Order: sequence, then C-alpha cells, then structure tokens
Amino acid sequence: MDTSLSVDAARLWRALETLGEIGAYTDERTGLRGVNRLALTPADGEGRRHVVEQMRALGLAVTIDRIGNVFGRRAGLDDTLAPVMMGSHIDSVPTAGRFDGCLGVLGALECLATLGDHGVVTRRPIVAAFFTDEEGARFGTDMLGSAVATGRLALEDAYALRDRQGVSVREALGDIGFIGEADERLAAPHAYLECHIEQGPVLAAHGREIGVVTGVQGISWHEVTIQGKAAHAGTTPMELRADAGIVAARINLHLREMIRSGRFGADMRATMGALVPYPGLVNIVPGRVVCTVDLRNPDDALMRAAEAEVLRFYAQVAAEEKVELTWRQTARTEHVAFSSVVMERVAAAAAARGLSHEHIISGAGHDCQEMARLCPAGMVFVPGLYEGISHNPREYSTPEACAAGVSVLLDVLRDLAA
Amino acid sequence: MDTSLSVDAARLWRALETLGEIGAYTDERTGLRGVNRLALTPADGEGRRHVVEQMRALGLAVTIDRIGNVFGRRAGLDDTLAPVMMGSHIDSVPTAGRFDGCLGVLGALECLATLGDHGVVTRRPIVAAFFTDEEGARFGTDMLGSAVATGRLALEDAYALRDRQGVSVREALGDIGFIGEADERLAAPHAYLECHIEQGPVLAAHGREIGVVTGVQGISWHEVTIQGKAAHAGTTPMELRADAGIVAARINLHLREMIRSGRFGADMRATMGALVPYPGLVNIVPGRVVCTVDLRNPDDALMRAAEAEVLRFYAQVAAEEKVELTWRQTARTEHVAFSSVVMERVAAAAAARGLSHEHIISGAGHDCQEMARLCPAGMVFVPGLYEGISHNPREYSTPEACAAGVSVLLDVLRDLAA
Repeated sequence: MDTSLSVDAARLWRALETLGEIGAYTDERTGLRGVNRLALTPADGEGRRHVVEQMRALGLAVTIDRIGNVFGRRAGLDDTLAPVMMGSHIDSVPTAGRFDGCLGVLGALECLATLGDHGVVTRRPIVAAFFTDEEGARFGTDMLGSAVATGRLALEDAYALRDRQGVSVREALGDIGFIGEADERLAAPHAYLECHIEQGPVLAAHGREIGVVTGVQGISWHEVTIQGKAAHAGTTPMELRADAGIVAARINLHLREMIRSGRFGADMRATMGALVPYPGLVNIVPGRVVCTVDLRNPDDALMRAAEAEVLRFYAQVAAEEKVELTWRQTARTEHVAFSSVVMERVAAAAAARGLSHEHIISGAGHDCQEMARLCPAGMVFVPGLYEGISHNPREYSTPEACAAGVSVLLDVLRDLAA
Repeated sequence: MDTSLSVDAARLWRALETLGEIGAYTDERTGLRGVNRLALTPADGEGRRHVVEQMRALGLAVTIDRIGNVFGRRAGLDDTLAPVMMGSHIDSVPTAGRFDGCLGVLGALECLATLGDHGVVTRRPIVAAFFTDEEGARFGTDMLGSAVATGRLALEDAYALRDRQGVSVREALGDIGFIGEADERLAAPHAYLECHIEQGPVLAAHGREIGVVTGVQGISWHEVTIQGKAAHAGTTPMELRADAGIVAARINLHLREMIRSGRFGADMRATMGALVPYPGLVNIVPGRVVCTVDLRNPDDALMRAAEAEVLRFYAQVAAEEKVELTWRQTARTEHVAFSSVVMERVAAAAAARGLSHEHIISGAGHDCQEMARLCPAGMVFVPGLYEGISHNPREYSTPEACAAGVSVLLDVLRDLAA
C-alpha cells in the first residue's frame, strides 16, 4: 500500500469551515453554530454553486444530471477506463453540523488537490460527486439522487415528490438551477468510495481512528397504534383498565430483552423513539398510544427473525392487556454489504499509516449503499466527538481525525485508480 | 328508614336535559351532544341564572356569597336549627356530559319539589347549593367555591387566580354578575349530602344500583423529568445508551407491580397518563422524557409508603440506566373520610328500597370532601354507562338510575332533617 502522499489537513479544515458557513445559523438555546442546507433550498443552491466552483478551480470537468447530481471528472492516463468515483452529499437536515456528507465531498476534492500538488496522474479517471437530497428531510425519501442514478427510483417518481408546502422536487430543482442535461442513469464506475463521520459513539468509545465499514444495516420501521380505553385515573381499578401506555412500555422493554438475549446478533438495534399517549393528561389512563419501533440488523435472516418476534409479541401483549394493536411498516430496507476488496484496501491503508482501526457496520443510510448496486463500493468512517452526535450543531470531528480519514481515502483511491 | 316518598324520575330527567342544553355543543368527531360550561364563562352564567330561577320557583330563599356559591333555603319547622345541606356544582370541563355535578344540584331541587308535592315540612331547614368552579379546568384550582366556603382557601387568593387569558376569578365572577353579598365563610350545616355519578366503572361492573361513598382517595401527583442521552437509533449500541424512554417504561410497569403486590392496599391506583419523549423521532433514542405519575390511596399511611417506594424506585432505575431523574410534586391531598352516620343512612335507605349497593371510595374529587371539614358529610353514587366514562360527551346514566340515587338522597335528607 502506497501511503507516500497525505492530504493537507489545514486546507481540508478550511474547506469544511467555508462550506459550513453557507446556510449557517446560531442555535438559540446553546449558542452553537449550526447548518441548515435542506435539500434544494436557496441555501443548498448556494452550497452547490460553491462546490462546483471548487471543482472548476481544480480543473475538473463538471456535469450535472437530470436529478441534480453533480460530477467533477479528472482525466486518467487511459481515459476510456471506468473511473473511480468518490462522493457523498452536501444537503443537510435543518439542524445539522458541518461534517455529515460534506467530509466525503470536500475530502474527495482534497484528494484531487493533493494529486494535483504532486503532479500525480492516475491510470483511471477519477470522479468527485455530490448527490441530491441524501437526507430525505424535505421530500421524505432519503438517498434520492443516488437512488435515481443507480436505478432504484425512477426519475419521474423522484420529480413528483413534494415537500409539506406542496413544492415538487422538479420545481425545487428548477428554482435553484440544478436540472442538468446528463442522463440520470449513471454508467458503472470501477469503484465507489465515501469518507463519512461515523455518526455514532463506537469508534470513539473503542479509541479507534478509522472505521472500515462493512455495510449498512437493514432497517425496519413500524408505526404502532395501541387502542385501549381512556379511563379516570382515580376511579378505575387496575383490573378494569386497558392502558395503552402500559402496552407501549412492555413493547419497549421487550425490544431490549430481545437484544440482550443475543438471539438476533450482536449488531441488532431496537428503539422506541416516538410515543404519543392520548389524551396525555396526568389523571387519565391513556386510551390510545401511537409509537414507533426502529429495528436495525446487518443480517437479513436475523432481521426477519427479529421482525417475526416483534409481531409475535405485539399479538401476545395485545391479548394479555385487552387492547387492539395495529401497525404499519413505514420503512424497510435490506442489509447492504460493502465490497470486501474495498474493505481490505481501507484496512491495509489504515494499518500502513499506523492508524488504529476496526470493522464497523453503519447504522445510518448513505449514498454508498445505493452505489453498491453498481460497482464495488466502500466507506471510511472517521470518529466524531461527543459520543458521535450528529444531525445536531454539536456534531464535531477534529482536523486530525478528518485528515486521517481522507488520507486513507486517498490511498485507496490511488490503489484502485492505478 | 322511611322510604315512602320517591322523586319524579321524568321531572328529574327533564331538568337534566334542560340544563344540559345550556352550553351544549355537538362533538365533531362523534356527533354526540356535549356540554361546555367552563366556570364563570357566559354559559356558566346562563346555567346559574337558570338554576336560580328553578330555586325561586320552588319558593327557596336564594343567597349568593362573595365567591359566587349559591344557596337556596327552605325553612324548617324549627328554623333556628342548622340546616341539612345538599349540593354539588354546575360548572363543567370543556368536553363534558350532562350529569357530573348537575345530578347533585338538580337532584337536590327534585327532593325539595317532592317534599313540596306532598306538603312535607321538615324540622330542620334544608339548603340546596351549587358551588363555584368545582372542576378547576379554567383557573387551575378545583373545588374552588367549596374550599373558600369551608376556609381551606382565602377569598383574596381565590379572587387572584387567573385563567390562561389573564382573566382573574374576581373579574370573571363580576362579568357574569355572581359576586354575592353573603359572607364567604359558611356556617356549619347539620349535615351535607351529595348525589353524583360514579365517574368510574365499578358499580356497573359489579351490577350495583347505589354506591355508599366512604370518602375520597388521597392524591399524589409527580411530574418526572428523565435526562438521558439522545442518540442515533441505528449507530448506538444498547450498552452505550441512556434511553429516557426505557426508564419511563420501567417506572410505568413498576407502578403496576406495586399495585399487584397488594402491599399498598386494594384501593391503590397508579397511572402514568402523560409522557413526552424528546426529540420524539423514530430514529433517535429519547434523550429526555417528561412524564407524570398519579397515585391514589384511601389510606394515608399506605399512600406515604407508596410514595416512598416510588421514590426508592426512581433512584434505583436512574442508577441502573445511567440517567438523571428529577421530580416535583404537582398535587398532594390527604384521604378524606366521610361520615359513618351518613354512610349508614345511605346504606339503610338503599336496602329499604331493595336497591343493590356497595361501599365505594371516590377516586375523583368532590365538593363533599371540602364540606366534610365543616359537618358530617357523605355521598350517594349512581352508576354510569359505558364503563362510567365522564368528562366526555358519552357520559351517561339512565333516568331510572338517576331517580334511584336521588330517592335515596331524599330518604337520607328526611331522616337527617327530622
């Protein structure tokens, strides 16, 4: 593994700071500086134009496709070969930090700048990309641009999605001037690489500098409606109650018991994040609760087993507590495994640089999981501070950690593009 | 027990229907006819003027005190004796039925009408009363009028209470013309009686026609704030979480275990009625939960034991789950025991009439618990339909059930006024 070139940590940090000022705001409660570049808003448009400028300054040939994905291409010695692509996204949730997505895009540009600094031209062409609306926070569908580019989502269906104000993706794309002319279906690159903050606490808790990402967990979301009987808290004996809140509590604790049992693997996650009791008053037994269940598992068979166990428990608890329980699936994705070749290269680069590293499954979704359908794909994770908090102005990683991750990205890029 | 007189079921029912049209509305979702006579609103004023008219039509001498409590007095053979008082309230929560409170007030007037029909004059004078703002739904303090009349609450403190729009009790009382001239401190009656719907499912579940009310449960309300750590549901392993929702779930289930243990008596109730997780999103581990605990117990020593056990568990679960838990007391009242003499008379009257009956503790607050400080006091409960639902347009009792309860009220009245 050739690790003779390293990226410029200070230049990368300045790039993150500069992009982080576009759509920036000050959080009233904490005084922290946050970022709001919700997809296809004017702030996103301004961020996009800024990154396109950076691409042009690096001499890249910029193309924009019909869903607004942006590609900056650097020619290779044999320009007929499929390129190695790096990328991520620059759109954000409304209460974001500076790193999520941006590290992958600006890191890709920093790799190309470093190659330029040293006059290195690779055999294969290289493409640095950013995809439209990875977050899904505005139009409700995440990985929108990469899903269209890789054929999971039809362009017309993507165009037709609307935000809460009724504005369609197509209208919003037009408004910021990012409906390009390139075919939205992407030709398969040779490989796809993405550097990203972990958005979780594992690497920091284990003292690791690099995460070798093995794939993205499967996700199963339920919205559960529990219909019991509202009743007076003072007058209704416990045996005459049908308390929807008790049912939600039992489901929440059962989820944790499922994980503790080990039956669904070490990487199983389960969360009850939302819970609304009705009427939600101190002296009324909740007659109805609407709550959510979020299951994650990197093993599709174990995920199906976990889902079956959850459904079995829904039926059991509903019968025991004399409530009606209904549920609907609000999201469901299979596990995506990343390329073992890419994983091996990432681990080798980290080892050659003396960076501590471990294999890690991603609990969050990323554009890389879409690209994995087209070509060998993989990710480099960088630890975040504050237990990896993300989608929050407190999101933070250090200049050193970011540069380490992007230098590993550079190593793998050079290896695959050679 | 003399049960030779019975009230006129049809007249009582018409009176309930007529008062129920004042402040009536149609519930949009169910199409049911509900009542909104929030205390000291124009609708409450209209209801008050209507009842005062009924009192005058019965020949009662009407006085109004400075907190707006209204008393209609019927002279006795020895008018120097302390009167037997019957009463309740006609104000309502914003989504009420026709029975809560009104049955006690209109039932008292029906008793007096029946005495009049039969030319019966009792030895003691009789007073039919309705008290101001029993519900507490507008100004935040329940049993307001009876608390002032019996000295628990100072008049000036009651006057100074304000609703959410900033209107004070004094201003609102003035607006509807119900600041009377009578001293707000009530002279002790000989006894106080109140007929009320149960507002719970027990009598109906047990097939009883009459409840002999033994008293009102003590109440202890906590607002509990659980501060854990918000975290990404996909990326955060269970052992690195501090899930405030899990803590709330454990408290909720522990409350039920406490009751099932039997250690806190058969009449112990415990409820988690309100629960708000933050941020309350499907894919975020709740970092904070604010929830409520409502404890009821008719035995003050058992209530204190239950409170101690709840606090012990708060500390245990906070330590085990690595969260901070704080709580504050939002309400606390001691158990009120009703007069054994009145209970005995209610039971005797029901037995003499061949009405099935049982002793029952009230889980809800009533004006009678305030009056119990002044004189022997007691209540007659009438079963409600639909599991005793109350504070809801579905609140319902039958003409027969209402008349049975009010006839028992009449029997006890005659006995005590003789």
